[in-house]
Amino acid sequence: MSVLVVGTLGLDDIETPREKAERILGGSSTYIAFAARPLAHPVGIVAVVGRDFPEEYKQLLQSSNLDLTGIQTLEDQDTFAWGGRYRRNMNIRDTTFTHLNALAKFNPIIPDTYRDSNVLCLGNLPPKTQSDALSQMSGKGFVACDTMNYWIRNMREELNDVFSQIDCLLINDEEARQITGESNLYAAGRQVLALGPKILIIKKGEHGAILFIEEQVFIVPSFPLKEVRDPTGAGDAFLGAFGGSLANESFIGMDALKRAVVYGSTVASFCVESMGPYELANLTNAAIEERSKLFRGITEWPVLHGRV
Amino acid sequence: MSVLVVGTLGLDDIETPREKAERILGGSSTYIAFAARPLAHPVGIVAVVGRDFPEEYKQLLQSSNLDLTGIQTLEDQDTFAWGGRYRRNMNIRDTTFTHLNALAKFNPIIPDTYRDSNVLCLGNLPPKTQSDALSQMSGKGFVACDTMNYWIRNMREELNDVFSQIDCLLINDEEARQITGESNLYAAGRQVLALGPKILIIKKGEHGAILFIEEQVFIVPSFPLKEVRDPTGAGDAFLGAFGGSLANESFIGMDALKRAVVYGSTVASFCVESMGPYELANLTNAAIEERSKLFRGITEWPVLHGRV
Repeated sequence: MSVLVVGTLGLDDIETPREKAERILGGSSTYIAFAARPLAHPVGIVAVVGRDFPEEYKQLLQSSNLDLTGIQTLEDQDTFAWGGRYRRNMNIRDTTFTHLNALAKFNPIIPDTYRDSNVLCLGNLPPKTQSDALSQMSGKGFVACDTMNYWIRNMREELNDVFSQIDCLLINDEEARQITGESNLYAAGRQVLALGPKILIIKKGEHGAILFIEEQVFIVPSFPLKEVRDPTGAGDAFLGAFGGSLANESFIGMDALKRAVVYGSTVASFCVESMGPYELANLTNAAIEERSKLFRGITEWPVLHGRV
Repeated sequence: MSVLVVGTLGLDDIETPREKAERILGGSSTYIAFAARPLAHPVGIVAVVGRDFPEEYKQLLQSSNLDLTGIQTLEDQDTFAWGGRYRRNMNIRDTTFTHLNALAKFNPIIPDTYRDSNVLCLGNLPPKTQSDALSQMSGKGFVACDTMNYWIRNMREELNDVFSQIDCLLINDEEARQITGESNLYAAGRQVLALGPKILIIKKGEHGAILFIEEQVFIVPSFPLKEVRDPTGAGDAFLGAFGGSLANESFIGMDALKRAVVYGSTVASFCVESMGPYELANLTNAAIEERSKLFRGITEWPVLHGRV
C-alpha cells in the first residue's frame, strides 16, 4: 500500500483574479503526497529544500502523516520558488518567476524502505532526475510520471528515456499536442503510447481526463464546480490520488485503472476549491468517497432504448 | 412518436483544411431531421426554400422518409445560402457569407397533423419565427430549441420570450457564456435556467455536453474520434437525436433526458465523420445502438473502493 513521491518542494506566489498568496507551501510533491495520503499508507516524499524552508511547513507535512525521511535540506541554498498569475478565465496562467535554487542541486536518494514501493509517483522534474530516481527502485512497483512543456521542448532525448521506463504518463492536452504535433487528442494519445509508456492519461482541466491503454480508452469528466479558486496543483493532485488508489490494488487491470482515474479527478476537484494545498492537506477518505458517489450519479447512464 | 422540425433548409459552401464542397444540402432542419429519423417516426420538416433548391435534394429528403408537407417553396426567391471555413484546429469556423434569400420571408405554417407532435425541435432561426411556430402548436408536446450568438446579441427580448415557452434550450458553451456573462459553465447553466427553460443542455464540442435540470446535472463526453472531417451540423444532429429519443418516452424524467443526451452525443459523432449531411442521411438505428454500446463501455465506472 506504499506510495513514494519524488518531486519538488517549494515556496509559491500565487495570484488569481480575486486573491493573492505569497511564499505558501508548494511544489509538485506537496500536492501529490497530500492527494495520495487519504487513499494509501505510508506515503513518503523524496525532495530537496533550502535553508529558508519554513519549519511550520515541515510540521504541516509531518502532521499529515507523510514520511519525510527522503527530504534533503541544502543549507547553502534557498528553496525552489515559483510564482504564477492566473488570467481572468483561470485556464491561462503566466509564470511570473522561477528560482530553481536548491532544486538545481537535487540528487534524489530513495530511502531503502521505499525502493519497492507499490507505486512511485514521479512529479514534474528534469527527466534526468526522474531517471536517477527510477534507477534506485526495485522495479516491482507501478510507476506514474508527470512532465511539462519545458522538458518536452528542451530535453526530448532524456524524456524519451524516461518514457521507456514508466508504466503511466500523465500529461495535459497541450503537452500531448506538443509531444506529437497532432491536434486530435485521440490520435495524439496513440502516438504517445508508441513512445514507450504502457498507459497514458491526458488531463483536460475542466473538461476531464482520458485514459489510454492498448486500444482502449476511458473518459471521465471533471467534477462540476461552480467556482474554481486556485487551479495550482490540480494535475499533481490527480497524479497523487491516481497513485494512491492504485496502491490498494492487487491487480492493475482496466477496472483498477478506471478507479484510479475517478479518484484522480475527484481529488483534483477538491484541490482547486481553495488557495494552495491546505484544504487538500485535511482531505479525508470519507469526503473523497462521498464526492465520488455524487460524481458517479452525474455521469452514470440509464438503460438505453436498445431497439433495432 | 412524431417529431416536428422547424428550421432552415439551405445550400452550404464548406471548406475544411483538407476539402471543399459547394452548394451542398445544408440548413439546420436537414441535420436535425436526418438525426431524428433513425430514432422516431414520423419526422416532419417545416422550412422554406427558393426556386433554385435542387430537385435531387428534395428527393434525398423524401427518400429518407421525411415528411415534407411543411416545406414552402418561394418561386421569387433563391434558397438560403451559407458558407463556412474551418481553421486548422477545426474548433474555429469563419462564416464566409450568409445570403438569407427566401429565409427572410419565412412564415412557418405548421401542418395540422403536426400541431400535437410529441416533440418539436426548433432549429436556429430568428426568435420571432420560433415564437410563430410555437404559437401554432397544441402545447402538449416537448419543445427543444436552439439559438445562436447573433440573436443573443441583437434580439434578446424576443429570445427571452422564446425561453419562457420552451422545455429545453440547447446551446454551446460560448453561447452560455454570452447569455450570462459568466465564464464558469455550471454557474452560467443555473443562470440560463432562471431565464425560463426548464432544461438546459450546454454542448462543448469535442468535450461533450452537460444537462441541467433543477439542481441536477448529467455530463456526457463526446464519443472519441481520431478524425473529425466536418463539424458542420453537429449541434443540429445532437438536437435531432435528442428530440428523436424523447419522442419514444412515455414519461420525460431524468432517465429519459439522460438517454436523449447520450443519443444526441452519439449521433453528433456520426455527423462529424463525413462532409455534409449525406452519411447522416443513411444512419441506421442499429449503427446508433452499436456505437452507444461502445460509448457506454468508454464511460462506465467500475465499483470504487468504498473504504472509509
